Amino acid sequence: MKKIINDPENVVEESLRGMAMAHADLLEVHLDPHYIVRAGGPDEGKVAVVSGGGAGHEPLHGGFVGYGMLHAACPGAVFTSPTPDQVEAATKAVDGGAGVLHIVKNYTGDVLNFETAAELAAAEGSQVEAVVINDDVAVKDSLYTAGRRGVGGTVLAEKIVGAAAERGDDLASVTSLCERVNANVRSMGLALTSCTVPHAGKPTFELGEDEVEVGIGIHGEPGRERLPIEPADALVDRLLNPVLEDLPFESGSQVLLFVNGMGGTPLIELYLAYARAEEVLRERGISVQRRLVGNYITSLEMQGMSVTLLRLDDEMTELWDAPVHTPALRWGR
Amino acid sequence: MKKIINDPENVVEESLRGMAMAHADLLEVHLDPHYIVRAGGPDEGKVAVVSGGGAGHEPLHGGFVGYGMLHAACPGAVFTSPTPDQVEAATKAVDGGAGVLHIVKNYTGDVLNFETAAELAAAEGSQVEAVVINDDVAVKDSLYTAGRRGVGGTVLAEKIVGAAAERGDDLASVTSLCERVNANVRSMGLALTSCTVPHAGKPTFELGEDEVEVGIGIHGEPGRERLPIEPADALVDRLLNPVLEDLPFESGSQVLLFVNGMGGTPLIELYLAYARAEEVLRERGISVQRRLVGNYITSLEMQGMSVTLLRLDDEMTELWDAPVHTPALRWGR
Repeated sequence: MKKIINDPENVVEESLRGMAMAHADLLEVHLDPHYIVRAGGPDEGKVAVVSGGGAGHEPLHGGFVGYGMLHAACPGAVFTSPTPDQVEAATKAVDGGAGVLHIVKNYTGDVLNFETAAELAAAEGSQVEAVVINDDVAVKDSLYTAGRRGVGGTVLAEKIVGAAAERGDDLASVTSLCERVNANVRSMGLALTSCTVPHAGKPTFELGEDEVEVGIGIHGEPGRERLPIEPADALVDRLLNPVLEDLPFESGSQVLLFVNGMGGTPLIELYLAYARAEEVLRERGISVQRRLVGNYITSLEMQGMSVTLLRLDDEMTELWDAPVHTPALRWGR
Repeated sequence: MKKIINDPENVVEESLRGMAMAHADLLEVHLDPHYIVRAGGPDEGKVAVVSGGGAGHEPLHGGFVGYGMLHAACPGAVFTSPTPDQVEAATKAVDGGAGVLHIVKNYTGDVLNFETAAELAAAEGSQVEAVVINDDVAVKDSLYTAGRRGVGGTVLAEKIVGAAAERGDDLASVTSLCERVNANVRSMGLALTSCTVPHAGKPTFELGEDEVEVGIGIHGEPGRERLPIEPADALVDRLLNPVLEDLPFESGSQVLLFVNGMGGTPLIELYLAYARAEEVLRERGISVQRRLVGNYITSLEMQGMSVTLLRLDDEMTELWDAPVHTPALRWGR
């Protein structure tokens, strides 16, 4: 295992210390327990949006804390759910009196620990709702999941829902918007290489020199099938077709197209894949209204990509465009 | 070789098509010859800033075209200098009558081809100046270079100088500012893995399972030494110490600290390295005023990082903070 780390057991904490230094204007990073909140304290009278999950998917979620997006993020150990006390502490820290929405990726441990945290926070007087994101069409159930996994759609949900909270929508509206985003978003990913969890010290799975894993999960969970490598256009089609058929996305749909890197894939390849994806959509009469290309929900140094499609309505588009100021997404201010 | 590509000979063109689709609001991408300019035509009366170099370092340079930064970028083939006709076409396309500054990384082919292009453009009436960036302290001469290589300092120069052009500084001022940035910036990088140039099909160099190449160039050129892997803190020190000693940066200096990923290194590791770098600077009484962490000048899928330090003055800081709107750097609008 070659990584830029010190002690494999301290990777998350040491990385959080770097985030705290690099973004002191935006973030407060707490280390006991681990959680990241916006600098400047709770937003009185506004709904607070909190997310979290295992570390190793950076910039998700900590890189999305800031104006117009998350109020707090709780990173667990690498690929490990945050504990209820982390989520509870973050929830209490950002509750400005108008309630808190938990955005949870659908993994059994995350769902359970966010539920426990919500109960604890409710017992102390916070009003908490939760939406579970489950946009991955690759598999019905998986290694860590009852039902579909939550993947790239989470990034889009956090941006859109964060903007609604920022403009002052109440908890019921913010929650229902998050459910609407989840109902209209679908994703699928593939891997060219495995990742290596620092404290495991060896690759999570083995993949042959010429193989790709199609339908991979963001922790290296098995996907749909293992195939010989193909040209990029064919790989994009293998992701995009199941995504398109699932909702389904149809001629006339207006969408946000998100091509995401798994962490080890360079931008030159992601843009190349993006071109194919947008071309296929154009051929099908689907109108790409908004775009995102880059490494936003990753699996450590895994090489690979995922494609996420969100069917937009006018409100979602307006909220996507609204100003955001976080370490990883920033526009309009 | 496993990559998300189609024909290895068409990687740059297909990737540029993706950039064009993904950023149609910001960029115009020309494919014959290859160059990228801001959408909306030349900025009449303002100095235009043009850069370029081999592809494979994305987002550099195309991802830095837009308001407040570059007016044009010329990507060559992967790790191959752009041809004079590309640079000439880009120069003519963005010349708004107040002259054009070429920001050139110090590689023999780049310097030569930018010079030829400048002569051609001058013969057609453009006033062209050039500044060669040579911030890499690792080696005196290298495989593709007489003198030091141009690396991470280029990103900072393009941002700061682009902001000066945007506010209306004349060509002499913009050129002299660029020289001042170059005189005050130093960098050094390391690699944990090689990269693979698509049309070569095999890794550029071999590195043992437990080795790092310290002082690596952004094309995989040999560095200073090959060492067994060490903890991140020691690796950061191996980059930072030569950088600090070279200028030298001293107690009381105000700096911008830039920790850059080589393309295949995840953000969780870059932040961890960032923490060590800022700590060392604090211990030495050097004041970190501005920060940048992420993959901005890459070597395809290479795993590794570089550290860049820029000694700031008030004008540079103000220009760094000025609004920018490009695919890869955006703030203030």
